[in-house]
Amino acid sequence: MEMRVTTTWHGKRHFSATGASGHTVSIDAKPDAGGEDKGARPMELLLMGLTGCTGIDVTMILERMRQPLEALDIEAVGTRREEYPQAFTEIHLTYRITGDVQPAKAWRAIHLSEEKYCSASASLSARIVPHLVLNGAPVPDPGVGDSAED
Amino acid sequence: MEMRVTTTWHGKRHFSATGASGHTVSIDAKPDAGGEDKGARPMELLLMGLTGCTGIDVTMILERMRQPLEALDIEAVGTRREEYPQAFTEIHLTYRITGDVQPAKAWRAIHLSEEKYCSASASLSARIVPHLVLNGAPVPDPGVGDSAED
Repeated sequence: MEMRVTTTWHGKRHFSATGASGHTVSIDAKPDAGGEDKGARPMELLLMGLTGCTGIDVTMILERMRQPLEALDIEAVGTRREEYPQAFTEIHLTYRITGDVQPAKAWRAIHLSEEKYCSASASLSARIVPHLVLNGAPVPDPGVGDSAED
Repeated sequence: MEMRVTTTWHGKRHFSATGASGHTVSIDAKPDAGGEDKGARPMELLLMGLTGCTGIDVTMILERMRQPLEALDIEAVGTRREEYPQAFTEIHLTYRITGDVQPAKAWRAIHLSEEKYCSASASLSARIVPHLVLNGAPVPDPGVGDSAED
């Protein structure tokens, strides 16, 4: 099973990347790193891929659980090494869910994504720490063993 | 050192992700996975981040080495596990360089990126295998110890 992306240089630090899906994404460095800010930073794309991956999982799992999602956003905050290479060491993911969703089912969906389905999460070496805010209120992680189902 | 991205759900499997740089990227699943193909696949974004990261490094290093780059594209082919999570296990990066660039310097720039500077490469758990095609001809990897400088 393979996935392919081709990335083309456009001068200075500006690139465009196109995957097999046909979608093109612009990439650039910030001005103080010699770039012209014509696109997202490469490391932002890793966090975007991670949030998109787990977001797709969570919407699909909650749909199957018949939990009506009204809104969802996911914030990723990645901590990076100070020294080069400045890899992510820890990534905190905050899932903000609005809807008549049971807290235990929301956590169950998040754990299923992170532990079983999310290919992006499994491709990154950083420790990933999830958080849930449901209808504006933080809900502590019940832990894997305490989830509502199984 | 932190980096932040916020990703918002737009129904079905469609998301938009915005980083601190202000650039927004659209993410979606393919139709046979419940998506509407309104954006790149999450796993493509990981490869895009990787190619952009090493591409920025290589252009910067070759500039410092006064090697005149005319064109550069980088192709990433990621092999994924068949089972879930379908993480990348190996990623082949082919650097296609056009210009009056010395082969040993091109390889030196690639090795410096992969081993020392590229934060995306260091954030991924897959084995990364570089290849060089210089002015249309493949140039074998001289190996780290055999590079022209140090």
